[in-house]
Amino acid sequence: MLIVLKNSATDEQIEEISRRISDAGLTPGIVPGARRSAITVTGNTGVAVIPEITELPGVLRVIHVTRPYRLATLEGTEGKHSEWQIGDARVGSNTAWFVAGPCSVDDPERLLETARFLKSIGAQALRGGAYKPRTNPYAFQGYGEEGLQWLAAARAETGLPIVTEAMDEKQLEQVVQYADVIQLGARNMQNYSLLKAVGKAPLPVLLKRGLTATLDEFLNAAEYILAEGNEQVILCERGIRTFGDHARFTLDVAAIPVLKSLTHLPVIADPSHPAGTRSLVEPLARAALAAGADGLIVEVHPDPKYALSDGQQALRFADIDLLAQRARGIASVMGRGFGAAAT
Amino acid sequence: MLIVLKNSATDEQIEEISRRISDAGLTPGIVPGARRSAITVTGNTGVAVIPEITELPGVLRVIHVTRPYRLATLEGTEGKHSEWQIGDARVGSNTAWFVAGPCSVDDPERLLETARFLKSIGAQALRGGAYKPRTNPYAFQGYGEEGLQWLAAARAETGLPIVTEAMDEKQLEQVVQYADVIQLGARNMQNYSLLKAVGKAPLPVLLKRGLTATLDEFLNAAEYILAEGNEQVILCERGIRTFGDHARFTLDVAAIPVLKSLTHLPVIADPSHPAGTRSLVEPLARAALAAGADGLIVEVHPDPKYALSDGQQALRFADIDLLAQRARGIASVMGRGFGAAAT
Amino acid sequence: MLIVLKNSATDEQIEEISRRISDAGLTPGIVPGARRSAITVTGNTGVAVIPEITELPGVLRVIHVTRPYRLATLEGTEGKHSEWQIGDARVGSNTAWFVAGPCSVDDPERLLETARFLKSIGAQALRGGAYKPRTNPYAFQGYGEEGLQWLAAARAETGLPIVTEAMDEKQLEQVVQYADVIQLGARNMQNYSLLKAVGKAPLPVLLKRGLTATLDEFLNAAEYILAEGNEQVILCERGIRTFGDHARFTLDVAAIPVLKSLTHLPVIADPSHPAGTRSLVEPLARAALAAGADGLIVEVHPDPKYALSDGQQALRFADIDLLAQRARGIASVMGRGFGAAAT
Amino acid sequence: MLIVLKNSATDEQIEEISRRISDAGLTPGIVPGARRSAITVTGNTGVAVIPEITELPGVLRVIHVTRPYRLATLEGTEGKHSEWQIGDARVGSNTAWFVAGPCSVDDPERLLETARFLKSIGAQALRGGAYKPRTNPYAFQGYGEEGLQWLAAARAETGLPIVTEAMDEKQLEQVVQYADVIQLGARNMQNYSLLKAVGKAPLPVLLKRGLTATLDEFLNAAEYILAEGNEQVILCERGIRTFGDHARFTLDVAAIPVLKSLTHLPVIADPSHPAGTRSLVEPLARAALAAGADGLIVEVHPDPKYALSDGQQALRFADIDLLAQRARGIASVMGRGFGAAAT
Repeated sequence: MLIVLKNSATDEQIEEISRRISDAGLTPGIVPGARRSAITVTGNTGVAVIPEITELPGVLRVIHVTRPYRLATLEGTEGKHSEWQIGDARVGSNTAWFVAGPCSVDDPERLLETARFLKSIGAQALRGGAYKPRTNPYAFQGYGEEGLQWLAAARAETGLPIVTEAMDEKQLEQVVQYADVIQLGARNMQNYSLLKAVGKAPLPVLLKRGLTATLDEFLNAAEYILAEGNEQVILCERGIRTFGDHARFTLDVAAIPVLKSLTHLPVIADPSHPAGTRSLVEPLARAALAAGADGLIVEVHPDPKYALSDGQQALRFADIDLLAQRARGIASVMGRGFGAAAT
Repeated sequence: MLIVLKNSATDEQIEEISRRISDAGLTPGIVPGARRSAITVTGNTGVAVIPEITELPGVLRVIHVTRPYRLATLEGTEGKHSEWQIGDARVGSNTAWFVAGPCSVDDPERLLETARFLKSIGAQALRGGAYKPRTNPYAFQGYGEEGLQWLAAARAETGLPIVTEAMDEKQLEQVVQYADVIQLGARNMQNYSLLKAVGKAPLPVLLKRGLTATLDEFLNAAEYILAEGNEQVILCERGIRTFGDHARFTLDVAAIPVLKSLTHLPVIADPSHPAGTRSLVEPLARAALAAGADGLIVEVHPDPKYALSDGQQALRFADIDLLAQRARGIASVMGRGFGAAAT
Repeated sequence: MLIVLKNSATDEQIEEISRRISDAGLTPGIVPGARRSAITVTGNTGVAVIPEITELPGVLRVIHVTRPYRLATLEGTEGKHSEWQIGDARVGSNTAWFVAGPCSVDDPERLLETARFLKSIGAQALRGGAYKPRTNPYAFQGYGEEGLQWLAAARAETGLPIVTEAMDEKQLEQVVQYADVIQLGARNMQNYSLLKAVGKAPLPVLLKRGLTATLDEFLNAAEYILAEGNEQVILCERGIRTFGDHARFTLDVAAIPVLKSLTHLPVIADPSHPAGTRSLVEPLARAALAAGADGLIVEVHPDPKYALSDGQQALRFADIDLLAQRARGIASVMGRGFGAAAT
Repeated sequence: MLIVLKNSATDEQIEEISRRISDAGLTPGIVPGARRSAITVTGNTGVAVIPEITELPGVLRVIHVTRPYRLATLEGTEGKHSEWQIGDARVGSNTAWFVAGPCSVDDPERLLETARFLKSIGAQALRGGAYKPRTNPYAFQGYGEEGLQWLAAARAETGLPIVTEAMDEKQLEQVVQYADVIQLGARNMQNYSLLKAVGKAPLPVLLKRGLTATLDEFLNAAEYILAEGNEQVILCERGIRTFGDHARFTLDVAAIPVLKSLTHLPVIADPSHPAGTRSLVEPLARAALAAGADGLIVEVHPDPKYALSDGQQALRFADIDLLAQRARGIASVMGRGFGAAAT
């Protein structure tokens, strides 16, 4: 921590500030400067907390140097990136993870047909919403447990692990019985009660970045889960909100390599939600992989005009097939694989 | 709804689009234009939903005209703004509501002292967090039920109704037993499970705008509560996230009059969180009132250096006293009152 | 400047960093810390510049403490705010400045009628665009020198000084012959050639904040003008671009008090452009004044349906009259005046 | 254009609105609806302009359907993308353009060395700033004409065409004498005087997107140049300003495919400025190409610690060599080339 002093800070004020630092068990270091001086604070092992410090006369600004999360940090694993086993895939490994499926599950037959097709083109997990967060209370909210059962049936036939969202603790209890990966949506990224609950759940968690979350906030949200003992967190960049009006959200591709430099957790991308329209999904998918994403989660629907949510951004079978081929090409340029072998 | 056609749209495509509109029980109206034509969709009583419509060949763009919420809208009350009785105050009336208190309750004595002082300067409700949403999992998370008891004790002595936050359904059960108004924080504005739960609760709800919520999303969040039968919702503008780095958030004063023109619900402002620093709180409070806010909710602490959260933005007693006097002056310019009489 | 070191920084790397600091004529100060150490850089009188420093092995992050502008800073005037004499008004004084007029001047008679009316309600300067920045190249671009002559005629009759925009050096030469204050628009806030040119002009400059400018960038733009010898700069907050879609721009009221704490220059506000629609102009004007603005510049048109630009946000005579009355009320709550006496 | 009516609109008001539309030479079409009705406006060949229309009683909202630029639109070329010949390269063709060079030219020898190296790895043009836009007035502002001469010398030896920035008309006169492509910086994207001036210049223009420009504003800026007769415009996405703090700007990869769907002009990307730090440049370059960019413009410096501006984001020779190889790989996945053959 660095405490920048006002030009007008008196010796008495500087002494008082130093005393408070010492009281907190930390070490003050006075730095003289031509125009403005500062006090360094050292001795802390985590983030230094001296609550009253910004209050004291003579203090201009307090600058934090140490990052406020511990378990999520790459330094904590000495630079080694983690890999989580999900079905046959190792997420975070040299092979980028390939997850696809409908936005919401709407029909058991169509879901099965989708799962079979995805399996055939190398997908490694099946996504599908049984509980759907919807902006408008009168919009379709998902089939609930029935939808979870359809997902389980699709897994039984194809072997694809299931990724599905829970929005509260009651849903979580059910989701845990059917799913292989719990998804936490962007709107719940700072739902701390839910973060703690999934932190105690026995399944990996796919945590989506909030629409307006800084990377520090994103990693703090992950830290909530890790701190409860569940270490299998997968981060997902899915677009942020900006002034831009030409896509639904702005896919922040830079977040991918920056996150990889800050945390050992795998970082995947969702190109469907920022696109908002089908024709943008593949370009964004390619961009995310090229930026170094450890995987993609893509919305697919055999016949988007029957989709009960987000049909306009769902890829058709032919679209996702082409995307997978291009994704393999881009991954191979980066010296890695994408998904399982197509059959 | 207006469906804008591509220049290249064929007669067959236009027929197919019209057929789909009719199938959905709505009425298509073909609009010829020199450069580009369109089809109007009428006959809907809410938002028109024709899921497949953006999919059809020949369609360039779909423009929605009807707003997707009903109960929150000002048209629904024929232009009459609602007033809710909370303690002795009528929120939404010609007297702006005055709520103040500590960010988190940290000590029963200090809380009582604060409540007494606030009562003496005309405050009409006491805010204070027993459960605190914190970005970092290792930060102080609130005193929980003990804190709620301290709040109840302060109410018993001063008569000030209690405004306090619940972050999940379990906390909500407790909060309902102690509080007079349930606060829903910005990070939970789109926590739909919680919105539905407070929609069934027997208390008024203070709903804070999300950091990145459009006014449509904000009103849809209110609609979730209203749709469950709880009509006593109070909206609160508390700053949005922008590129600006000179304040914690950007207080969006324009949201206040625009919301008042869209909804019958009262609209108050929180100047403390967007300020992030004490010296900005009063200017923002004045600005919000001058823009037409129906009330203010302000963070106060008798000795901010002991505050367990957000101490740097908490006003001292003398500060809030001055703020209340200026607020009265500004309210009176607008022909209205602010808070109860000072004693 | 503070140079934060990587945990892995070696003694040799720290020595090399220190050597570079010394080579730049500055003083390194090594700060040992439990988890991470840092080097302080002192001895600089302006912003410390050590170009290669972020390149060196062992360096994690470089934190600048000293602000990069000098002449604009409030410290430079030892906390005294500047006042500029413009016509009969002292801008930056205890009386908030009242400027109004049409977006673009479109007719000499209507302009004269407007100027007379504004004078009668206490306006202290007349704004009006002869050269108009327009997003679309085919939109009306202003009457040019003819417009400047109409403005000068209005001044001749009413005594109101003229505020008008120049968008390039050629226009500036003309504007200087007719105007009393040169306006620099938001889109030109970082047009450095133009900033330097107005820095040599013999007139005060009203500098509008760019749509996406941080306060540091805004003050640096002012510094460009000051550095050329023209010290009479007036800053103007006019709304920033955010994700919000309910107003044209987001008026950033917090910028007003923060700027006042950083610079000695007067800070006014333009409520018309962020409003974008007539009904929002007065609430935003009240909010800006309540936040401490040193003045308002407002768009007015006797008959907005004839306005050649921005008619939907222009106030009518009755509207601006009411605004001026309310502005006086709010200013008086803050212990200050607004505009000249109404006649 | 669609004029949405208020529920309360009377028959008289609707008649008056229709009359105004007819007066403007356009055709009104009344659309009855169950809850709200609208009037369509047709007959316009460009953007319909009925200035007073938003003023009329009974009007709720006006929705524009036709886009306000003409020459830039892809419809204008019937879907054919334009290609511009620059040196040996065809910009906008199936081979992505490869431009690189120092941020600012700082030394003739180093520039020559850089140009030779870039030529050897397949670069097709040399970028370098002789005039530099700098936020701070006291920062290095470029070597001016001397720098242009160094660039010309580098071209003479390597054959690489020169891309360099002009910030005002005086600089433009010089730049035109030395350069092959005029660069217009992000801060000048809405400097309309400069746009018009380059519209009359005899060279292609590389137009950078403003930090906060919507795609409509970006295309309107291009339209300013096209409308003056210079059709050789190349658009460049270079990152937008958002709340994100982990990179200098947020590279908006979605803008690339969306622009390609709206305009016939080539669209390239600058990965260096949004990165702000060396390690992010290659991931962003890969992402932009994967999203469909028609080229890259990258900052390179043989020894970044001597760079007079933006040294921390300049790639070294080995870095750009690797980037070019990966870029070729990604381009080939998309069925296209990147740059000239390496020698």
